[in-house]
Amino acid sequence: MPLSARSTLPSLARGLVPEVADRPDRGLPIAPSQGVLQPLGIGEARIDGGFWGERQQLNATAIIEHCEAWVDQMGWTGNFDAAVEGRLPQDRRGREFADSDVYKLIEAMAWEIGRTGDADMDRRLRALVERIARVQEPDGYLHTHYGRPGQGDRYSDLQWGHELYCFGHLIQAGVARGRTTGHDLLVEIAVRAADHVCDVFGPGGIDNVCGHPEIEVALAELGRYTGEQKYLDQSALFVERRGHGRLGDIEFGRSYFQDDVPVRETRIMAGHSVRALYLAAGAVDIAVEADDAELLEAVRLQTRATLARRTYLTGGMGAHHEGESFGLDHELPPDRAYSETCAGVASVMVNQRLLLATGDVLHADAVERALYNVVAASPAADGRAFFYTNTLHQRVPGSVPDAAEASPRASSSLRAPWFEVSCCPTNVARTLASLGSYLATTDASGLQVHQYAPAEIRAALPSATQPGGREAAVKVETAYPSDGDIRVTVLEPATLGGADEPWTLSLRAPSWAEGATLTVDGATEPVAPGYAHVTRAFAPGDVVELRLPVVARWTWADPRVDAVRGSVAVERGPIVMALESVDLDPEGRDASVNTARVVVDGAPVERDGEVLVPVAPAQVEDASWPYADRAPAPTAEPARLTPLVPYHAWANRGPSTMRVWLPVA
Amino acid sequence: MPLSARSTLPSLARGLVPEVADRPDRGLPIAPSQGVLQPLGIGEARIDGGFWGERQQLNATAIIEHCEAWVDQMGWTGNFDAAVEGRLPQDRRGREFADSDVYKLIEAMAWEIGRTGDADMDRRLRALVERIARVQEPDGYLHTHYGRPGQGDRYSDLQWGHELYCFGHLIQAGVARGRTTGHDLLVEIAVRAADHVCDVFGPGGIDNVCGHPEIEVALAELGRYTGEQKYLDQSALFVERRGHGRLGDIEFGRSYFQDDVPVRETRIMAGHSVRALYLAAGAVDIAVEADDAELLEAVRLQTRATLARRTYLTGGMGAHHEGESFGLDHELPPDRAYSETCAGVASVMVNQRLLLATGDVLHADAVERALYNVVAASPAADGRAFFYTNTLHQRVPGSVPDAAEASPRASSSLRAPWFEVSCCPTNVARTLASLGSYLATTDASGLQVHQYAPAEIRAALPSATQPGGREAAVKVETAYPSDGDIRVTVLEPATLGGADEPWTLSLRAPSWAEGATLTVDGATEPVAPGYAHVTRAFAPGDVVELRLPVVARWTWADPRVDAVRGSVAVERGPIVMALESVDLDPEGRDASVNTARVVVDGAPVERDGEVLVPVAPAQVEDASWPYADRAPAPTAEPARLTPLVPYHAWANRGPSTMRVWLPVA
Repeated sequence: MPLSARSTLPSLARGLVPEVADRPDRGLPIAPSQGVLQPLGIGEARIDGGFWGERQQLNATAIIEHCEAWVDQMGWTGNFDAAVEGRLPQDRRGREFADSDVYKLIEAMAWEIGRTGDADMDRRLRALVERIARVQEPDGYLHTHYGRPGQGDRYSDLQWGHELYCFGHLIQAGVARGRTTGHDLLVEIAVRAADHVCDVFGPGGIDNVCGHPEIEVALAELGRYTGEQKYLDQSALFVERRGHGRLGDIEFGRSYFQDDVPVRETRIMAGHSVRALYLAAGAVDIAVEADDAELLEAVRLQTRATLARRTYLTGGMGAHHEGESFGLDHELPPDRAYSETCAGVASVMVNQRLLLATGDVLHADAVERALYNVVAASPAADGRAFFYTNTLHQRVPGSVPDAAEASPRASSSLRAPWFEVSCCPTNVARTLASLGSYLATTDASGLQVHQYAPAEIRAALPSATQPGGREAAVKVETAYPSDGDIRVTVLEPATLGGADEPWTLSLRAPSWAEGATLTVDGATEPVAPGYAHVTRAFAPGDVVELRLPVVARWTWADPRVDAVRGSVAVERGPIVMALESVDLDPEGRDASVNTARVVVDGAPVERDGEVLVPVAPAQVEDASWPYADRAPAPTAEPARLTPLVPYHAWANRGPSTMRVWLPVA
Repeated sequence: MPLSARSTLPSLARGLVPEVADRPDRGLPIAPSQGVLQPLGIGEARIDGGFWGERQQLNATAIIEHCEAWVDQMGWTGNFDAAVEGRLPQDRRGREFADSDVYKLIEAMAWEIGRTGDADMDRRLRALVERIARVQEPDGYLHTHYGRPGQGDRYSDLQWGHELYCFGHLIQAGVARGRTTGHDLLVEIAVRAADHVCDVFGPGGIDNVCGHPEIEVALAELGRYTGEQKYLDQSALFVERRGHGRLGDIEFGRSYFQDDVPVRETRIMAGHSVRALYLAAGAVDIAVEADDAELLEAVRLQTRATLARRTYLTGGMGAHHEGESFGLDHELPPDRAYSETCAGVASVMVNQRLLLATGDVLHADAVERALYNVVAASPAADGRAFFYTNTLHQRVPGSVPDAAEASPRASSSLRAPWFEVSCCPTNVARTLASLGSYLATTDASGLQVHQYAPAEIRAALPSATQPGGREAAVKVETAYPSDGDIRVTVLEPATLGGADEPWTLSLRAPSWAEGATLTVDGATEPVAPGYAHVTRAFAPGDVVELRLPVVARWTWADPRVDAVRGSVAVERGPIVMALESVDLDPEGRDASVNTARVVVDGAPVERDGEVLVPVAPAQVEDASWPYADRAPAPTAEPARLTPLVPYHAWANRGPSTMRVWLPVA
């Protein structure tokens, strides 16, 4: 179709008259047309306080504004103005993918506006979008780093250029906007960019893929949003093309960008973690839409294998700084954990999609773990500094990053305000803003609650008797994860049809929750890890209480994880704990966590809201050579009950050393 | 001085009439003007068979020719022809530092010609040098990657350009040639290049350093060779300039090229290992020549600290693939050991220089360890493939590298014939060719033997009564390291003066050699690790026998080396042993070393020339999540005595898995 025939944006026909899944009042980040479970949107599951409510508030009041200020300060928004004013390439700032952080910020703002209706943020979003819209070329191409005299040609560097990656984030922002506010300029830009991608990379076009997957998951969702099959087809084309060596070899190897093995034949994730996970997320989407059971099963199995053999206790992924990549099986060094914040976000994306497609509780457990111990670990308590990598062992206290300078490095020992490659802060922002949709799902039988937070959840359930369906509404009250009691009250069932048909409320008991109980109408029964189901014709005021055994526990690793042999970790509910040097006795001879030993004798102690374990400080004499016919014996010191800190909260008290895995005395 | 005044090469005045240290028949790689010990050259200490003799033979018959073929095949020698023929930059091949591998090969050939007088190799060297000479510009500059239309300007990229690095290797080749054959075209080229460097980077010139240290150690030795102080001054200037941030920041941080802290203030080595070690070698040289005790002590202490806290059991250095760098203290993951072969070579360079300067046996021990377990590990048994990195744990069997293709990666699971960055093979070649000079030294009291090999050693000793000195000559007979008996026979003392003054023969007992004995004239006495001394007026035929307890032993690591907690290694004499999967029972349920456990019960067994340890195969069931409230118990299998392989010999029997550190059952 000639480009000129596109000016009326026919592909938006269904976007302009959204299906149920795309009603702006639902606000669905993921809207599969089929699957075991159906998602709820941020308009249907509203978090109200608690652990995640506080972080959504921090996002609203600090993180998003902080990101807005930094993309300006770094000149990344200015690049769009420079493009319009003919000042490129000389005035371009940032790396080749700098546009993408502006788009991811806009996506975060779109969800946040959808969540809160923040009019001022809406005004700021529109202003940003207008600056970007002016840069889009007549054929839909839009990038500040390519295509002008003095710049590289369009698509001249698919290995490293990140053009399709940037379009992916633009398209995701467009879908977020359409799904929360409705059709506007941002949606139009996104659709034009997607049409351009289909024109250039479609059958007969450039027979290649982008070095950084992202366009796949974006096009799939745009296809769902607009109802246009061509976007799903293009996404599928990208997924199938990858893995055949089209991108060429690089020093990191073809696995770096998953171009060594087709997704369909991949048995476990490898290479750059974020790339592998974004690709897997897109592959789930197209498998679901195409009813491609083989592809879905391939991604399901590779995700299971990755969780079983290549994932840190925190849910973090990526064991190598080199190539930001997965390690080999069981190669999970705590002190060299890369565990990029974005890989945590991406793992949430993949596992949530697999949860919807399969209903397997494993994926809900994985979402929870990554949210509490990777995504929540990234932002500082004030929301104005971030971890990019998330080490599990900090050997030396770092220095305080300059608050006015972007960190040139991904790894920082304390959270940095910004990075020269700053994908993580905006990824955290968009995840927090859309977090409500991870709480619950529906299926033909009823409502499933997967993640616990004080919340009100309203969902349309199918009905055997009411053609229009009926509404289930519940209120969740909990101090989780501080406390394991979760109280679900059925609200006024302002049903769409008024029926009192029975339905099933399912509550997730995480894998660690041996000994959980469920109380309904005063009757308490044990429930096993997995889903606990209560089926009845619920009346307003009915209460179901789940009690999860949130107490501190010791955790050991598979013996093949060589790097933590002889060590133990502490978890409490979904929270991974850490020993931080600022909690060691400063009067002690050694306030470093590197030599401390933990005495495993009974369970960890809980006292006054703290988790404490017996820690024996120790000192090891330096020898001129650290290997001998017997190991140097640490000096024995009496153990002292020492508080642990939630891993996500470490490094908020100044430079420190820290470790998750504690050598056993 | 104007360049035109230089055409007579006045700086070679002393090079053309060498001092004693620079007599071509001595063949000294390092010739300090002072120090506790004085080196011997490859003409004075000649290896005759045994472990190192076999490797020198392999170098002569395979490695050097292999390198010659590959620098041609890769087009790296052709770059010089292309320069002359005006075909640059379009016909240039290889990375920016490709010239350096040709120079390092020539250095290896120069030592080898000095060692054996190989006339055909001498013809080949001269032919290569003539091709290179034509490229040198009138002002002494010589590089195939910079300075021509269409190439980068000279010195436009000091961070990554490697121009001074290349000159450093050219100068080292020149010194090797001058010290073995005498003044010729290669020496002239090297001197012209050095003069150029002094002109451009001297006081008032470019106030910066090269991203990769190497010019420092090269200029220092050229200063010693020619007697020209200006080369030593320029070397000192480079050493002192570094560490003040002149090169600018990079993603790896300024420590990558040691530009964060001046050498004089460095407490332990950090950043890129080869860079740190080359720099340290040059710093020792200029400290010795300038009588700069503070600088010498700084390098001595940082080397001691590096050996104590940042060195693998093999003597390997470099714990990070990212940035090819040292890790933090005690951060020594076996499965991610970078332990570059070149870092092993460079550690030998630094420790040999410190041995000469201080006489501390620690450095001779370090030289031995790196030679046997890093340098010797690199070449394959046939001398036609090499390890670039030297992991201590191979988790998965690799694939066989293509014999016709250069590996694009530094890390290969099996030795590769060549690398796109191929610094290591030529570094091995030059080290093996000049190895004789590491065997022994002299001081005022006599002769010290540090490294053991079948050899004849002839050295001029100072004499109280003979102004011309006198000669000590000994023959070393040993099967070391297979066997610990070292028999030293005094040869005809064709003394320079004929005196029978007493002198001292000192033999090194390595740090592991508790229980060593020394037998002189039928009397045997225990000797402690360190140096055993025998002082007498030796007569021809006198025999001194050192017996080192070369038996397999268990070795444990400092408990701060977290990555090998609960594991033990086996060493036998200076040889680190490894468990390789090809020696595990193929009938067993799991022929992978990843799950095997060793039973530490008594000493390792020695039988029929093999070292065997009880290994219990095991299998661990995969769970969906590898962390639990108890570790998955491996299935217990009975232990079976399993042979270990010397680490340096692993991976010569096809794809395999391997580990040095064995988890204790």
